[in-house]
Amino acid sequence: MKDLPVEADATIQAQAEAPPPRTVLLTLAYDGTGLVGWQRQPAGASVQALLEDALAPIEGERVVVTGAGRTDAGVHALGQRASFALRRPMPLDVLQRALNARLPAQVRVTAAEWRPAGFSARFDARGKTYRYAIDNGRVADPFAARWAWHVPQPLEVTAMREALGALVGTHDFAAFQSTGSDVETSVRTLRATTCRQEAAPLPAWGGVPALPGGTRVVVELEGDGFLRHMVRAIVGTLVEVGRGQRSAADLARVLAARDRGEAGPTAPAHGLCLVDVRY
Amino acid sequence: MKDLPVEADATIQAQAEAPPPRTVLLTLAYDGTGLVGWQRQPAGASVQALLEDALAPIEGERVVVTGAGRTDAGVHALGQRASFALRRPMPLDVLQRALNARLPAQVRVTAAEWRPAGFSARFDARGKTYRYAIDNGRVADPFAARWAWHVPQPLEVTAMREALGALVGTHDFAAFQSTGSDVETSVRTLRATTCRQEAAPLPAWGGVPALPGGTRVVVELEGDGFLRHMVRAIVGTLVEVGRGQRSAADLARVLAARDRGEAGPTAPAHGLCLVDVRY
Repeated sequence: MKDLPVEADATIQAQAEAPPPRTVLLTLAYDGTGLVGWQRQPAGASVQALLEDALAPIEGERVVVTGAGRTDAGVHALGQRASFALRRPMPLDVLQRALNARLPAQVRVTAAEWRPAGFSARFDARGKTYRYAIDNGRVADPFAARWAWHVPQPLEVTAMREALGALVGTHDFAAFQSTGSDVETSVRTLRATTCRQEAAPLPAWGGVPALPGGTRVVVELEGDGFLRHMVRAIVGTLVEVGRGQRSAADLARVLAARDRGEAGPTAPAHGLCLVDVRY
Repeated sequence: MKDLPVEADATIQAQAEAPPPRTVLLTLAYDGTGLVGWQRQPAGASVQALLEDALAPIEGERVVVTGAGRTDAGVHALGQRASFALRRPMPLDVLQRALNARLPAQVRVTAAEWRPAGFSARFDARGKTYRYAIDNGRVADPFAARWAWHVPQPLEVTAMREALGALVGTHDFAAFQSTGSDVETSVRTLRATTCRQEAAPLPAWGGVPALPGGTRVVVELEGDGFLRHMVRAIVGTLVEVGRGQRSAADLARVLAARDRGEAGPTAPAHGLCLVDVRY
């Protein structure tokens, strides 16, 4: 070894100083109010851009981050995931704290873990869970305004649950896909669905009180993947069922028609939350 | 009666058209973020001014509204009460809808009831309940940021509860009163107190999800009346107990000292919510 030329020695040294990049998987929670969504846009604050901008000074160069789900403008996340390659060696808790110090308070890194090289938060995702919240009180609850769609008309939750049952399984969900979408296939598998009414007063949620007399309806969908606006189109249609404007049995017909025009309107973004991603 | 002069007839007619004013008691919920508090101020949006401005076109003249509690800037309410005299006869559900149509979405009238003439939301109040919420997760929960004080250090809730017990009953609460307050007496009665930890995951609250691993500490105080900043000074002191900076037994000493300088800091306004007023 002592015979090695200086240059080779320097190369070994440089390699020791710059180990291969390691893949990090972050879990993110964000209040999507006022954000333009996950994906970087020409204007406005996106979660991707906020995260990449927070990472750049930590890594010393630009980092490209891949998100599990491209949440739309105004959509929230409790368990969004994002992966990227990190060259600079550092403990994950240091990375998490450094990111949270640089990110705005409405976006938080709640966990960070190492993953094998080549891992992608997007392409390795095996399933996602979305939750849609409806404020079904007669008077809109000011504490739910940021996270729930206010529907003042009484909703028949049993009918909504029945209608939702028709969607479970592997189907072509073209009827619930935004027009103009460009994906290879609109076949997706919905694994589990719930639609439940939560009557007030609920157990206090960390200071967010339940409005007296208020009622919430929560729709939760778990699936292998979701088309653009799919959850919101399903919820918009379900609310028509809940209001008695459409029968529960009609959902099977809408699904079979594979025509977006047959389904109901797209529910507003602010009621939606990406709850979890499975790997 | 047919001999009555025309003027007297007109007077009877006018009286029939303008019945005596009736007293209305409203229940209000508001997200206090960005508001200057209950009381009308030279600048900024106060709940009182918003309400009086919404009432004026309904009544056809200026209406003065009395609030049960003068919540500070940034403090929320779930069950604030406000009373006023209404001259224009109208059903209460019409009044409620008309007010909600004129108020900003962050302030809602959740109930309206008739009360006897002379009733005052403020002076007839027999007790109030305030709730203070602490986000005790290591990472601040973006969904709790508007309604809870983030304290990342682990809190010993048993010690906080023990400390709180010393305050129950009738005492001079001068130690927990803002300096510069000008009230006749600082003796108040705390009827019941709770301090509880709520571990995540909690039951979903209308779309407001609990951050995984997050923990909330909720302090609830019920009393006949509260001094200025009293709940927040108590909570600020309790958090010092919870962090181990002060013993639980110290609270009795602080109370007896009747010196604001002996208590802890005033907890931030945004964790506080006026939950209920008793009559």
